[in-house]
Amino acid sequence: MGTFEAKLAELGVTLPDAPAPAANYVPYVQVGDMLFVSGQISKDGDKMITGKLGDDMDTAAGAEAAKVCAIALLAQVKAACGGDLDRLKRVVKLTGFVNSTPDYTEQPQVINGASDFIGAALGDAGKHSRSAVSAAALPFGVAVEIEGIFQIG
Amino acid sequence: MGTFEAKLAELGVTLPDAPAPAANYVPYVQVGDMLFVSGQISKDGDKMITGKLGDDMDTAAGAEAAKVCAIALLAQVKAACGGDLDRLKRVVKLTGFVNSTPDYTEQPQVINGASDFIGAALGDAGKHSRSAVSAAALPFGVAVEIEGIFQIG
Amino acid sequence: MGTFEAKLAELGVTLPDAPAPAANYVPYVQVGDMLFVSGQISKDGDKMITGKLGDDMDTAAGAEAAKVCAIALLAQVKAACGGDLDRLKRVVKLTGFVNSTPDYTEQPQVINGASDFIGAALGDAGKHSRSAVSAAALPFGVAVEIEGIFQIG
Repeated sequence: MGTFEAKLAELGVTLPDAPAPAANYVPYVQVGDMLFVSGQISKDGDKMITGKLGDDMDTAAGAEAAKVCAIALLAQVKAACGGDLDRLKRVVKLTGFVNSTPDYTEQPQVINGASDFIGAALGDAGKHSRSAVSAAALPFGVAVEIEGIFQIG
Repeated sequence: MGTFEAKLAELGVTLPDAPAPAANYVPYVQVGDMLFVSGQISKDGDKMITGKLGDDMDTAAGAEAAKVCAIALLAQVKAACGGDLDRLKRVVKLTGFVNSTPDYTEQPQVINGASDFIGAALGDAGKHSRSAVSAAALPFGVAVEIEGIFQIG
Repeated sequence: MGTFEAKLAELGVTLPDAPAPAANYVPYVQVGDMLFVSGQISKDGDKMITGKLGDDMDTAAGAEAAKVCAIALLAQVKAACGGDLDRLKRVVKLTGFVNSTPDYTEQPQVINGASDFIGAALGDAGKHSRSAVSAAALPFGVAVEIEGIFQIG
């Protein structure tokens, strides 16, 4: 087990298999050392984490959903690295979309669920730039979708 | 006619001229072999394809609008390649914004209109990462806007 | 004072200090000559510029908010360049999110507040690709959030 996955285990997280999209696109594309990972929705195993912030889901639950997206992103990075997550050099950018009402204002606290997890799991390699905004709606009614750009070696 | 444009012709698609924005930005910027293309709205010739998914436009019509965005993206890539679309090496990333109501959930099926077209037209070079989310609203009331990152040679 | 900052001074703009996020992420990440800057919200000094386009803020005020985001982006670029903004080679891509009602259609005119300023300040280096979409809501209720990709030397 690599260093990053050992740290994930300490945090109680085992990366799931990285699912392939059920459509005409792929989970990630690598160009040079840059890896572009498709938007990962808040789906824990087979269970969609649905909800609209500001309506039927609170910020703490939203942050948990964002963490699930971050785990899914790392699972894709691991797959892109041929199973060796330690080839991840840097989380470059996360863009987080929060399914919310028009008057919701705690998008950053929701996406912190992903940022805090990545910071805890990856240390300096996890220091990322990011944006956090609301989407009017998200696929399947999920609460959060996050896409990412990563540098791998 | 290059390979990709011959395939487009088979699919009944002729790339339009690539319009320049009517403002203080440009349709694309190239850095090394990476090409960043500005968001292309669903506009067919001079006709804006307007609508809000979940309200006055259905998913099938949304997918058609997404295909129009994909054609506009390829037109910009062709222009960036000095007219030779075969210099396109890979569609790296598409980010699709769907103009929808707050309870709409079929963003992926809408953006499949772009992904399926690009898959049919470009084969392996068209295998892209992507995100599909809803925007609260889009310029001119269009149904779909898609931006893209491409690798060109 | 460098060339770009002299031009900014002509335009009456002094770049503020570049604030660090109050959370587990960073304002920018550099990979090679590419700089990814976190989404900058419309915040002038300590004052959040809040509002929803199509409701309690008009397009001209939204464009002013977008300019504030552009100034914040350049402040981060300057910090990433060790204080020498002239190391900025190119504004590659801006993605602008406008806090708006579902029927608002002037997202491009709002984000022009950023694009026009960058064009005036940076000339050819400021010619960028961009997308302009609405977000259902934004952090703290701000009117605009803009993220950027830059090439630096």
